[in-house]
Amino acid sequence: MNFLEERIIKDAVVKPGNVLKVDSFLNHQMDIELMDRMGEEFYNRFKDAGVTKVLTIEASGIAIACSVARCFGVPMVFAKKSKSVNIDGDVFVAEVESFTHKNVNKVIVSKKFLKPEDKVLIIDDFLANGCALQGLISITESSGAKVVGLGIAIEKGFQIGGRVIRNLGYKLESLAIVDEMDAEKGTIKFREQ
Amino acid sequence: MNFLEERIIKDAVVKPGNVLKVDSFLNHQMDIELMDRMGEEFYNRFKDAGVTKVLTIEASGIAIACSVARCFGVPMVFAKKSKSVNIDGDVFVAEVESFTHKNVNKVIVSKKFLKPEDKVLIIDDFLANGCALQGLISITESSGAKVVGLGIAIEKGFQIGGRVIRNLGYKLESLAIVDEMDAEKGTIKFREQ
Repeated sequence: MNFLEERIIKDAVVKPGNVLKVDSFLNHQMDIELMDRMGEEFYNRFKDAGVTKVLTIEASGIAIACSVARCFGVPMVFAKKSKSVNIDGDVFVAEVESFTHKNVNKVIVSKKFLKPEDKVLIIDDFLANGCALQGLISITESSGAKVVGLGIAIEKGFQIGGRVIRNLGYKLESLAIVDEMDAEKGTIKFREQ
Repeated sequence: MNFLEERIIKDAVVKPGNVLKVDSFLNHQMDIELMDRMGEEFYNRFKDAGVTKVLTIEASGIAIACSVARCFGVPMVFAKKSKSVNIDGDVFVAEVESFTHKNVNKVIVSKKFLKPEDKVLIIDDFLANGCALQGLISITESSGAKVVGLGIAIEKGFQIGGRVIRNLGYKLESLAIVDEMDAEKGTIKFREQ
């Protein structure tokens, strides 16, 4: 087991409905040392990709993305969830369905911050159905920039997102892939990587 | 002028309606080196306060709060904007009016992450009418924890928030206080501190 898998076993809580609560260290209260260790790990996995920007989506991806961007010495951009129906022409837009909130958000990135010459590393805390990542890929490619990789803290391996994105040919690295979990027994099974 | 004021002069854009756009380095695209420099500055200003937790509100406060929490070696907690009307008993709640979006959000923090023994440093990127900060103060004090300070990147000195919070007796430190700005001329006047 790697450091993140160990931390999940120690502090995550499995809830009914395939919910994995990691709010004590990853997406509500944040352990900054863990963020930095993940940042270094993503740096090691993507250091030859020529990354010029790190892109994530608000809110819980921001902390990890900051740690990653620090390692690469590049800016971090986060896509904003937009409530307004009228989006002006200065932004790239994608529609993203939320697994947690069961709704659809428009997410936007200002055109100023993604350029055709950019090599973008997309970072997020969770991957389930993959809608958020597909939105970030779509936004990046609308700009003419290249997605050089995607880094995820925790992938739910029993949902479709990871397979879809790998099938599309992207280099997707998840630090922990949960293949099974059982709320009654409180057990979590990780994929061997 | 300090480093943040210099950066504002260099890269911020003044828009009509007292809008200060700092999205190229502070709240959409993030300059991580600047975040870290702000983190160190807040550490210097609050290092004797016994800080045990850094608290912010999603989304754009998260990056600065991470840098601050790293300097103190403590966890960072971010308050979540909640759409659900039914809030269960496991969270502290406050209502926060958004200056930018002209709406009211419930913001919540899980009761697990604020305890009576905590000494909380509240961090945010902007201070205007002070509603977000008042919500974070209210949440902290509901938990029995103590607010030992508040650190803001940019305060709009011509709005009421800063005065309200200082009048309540809190130690509020803003790295840059904008007292006047002029969209037509593009000028910004900072308060001498």
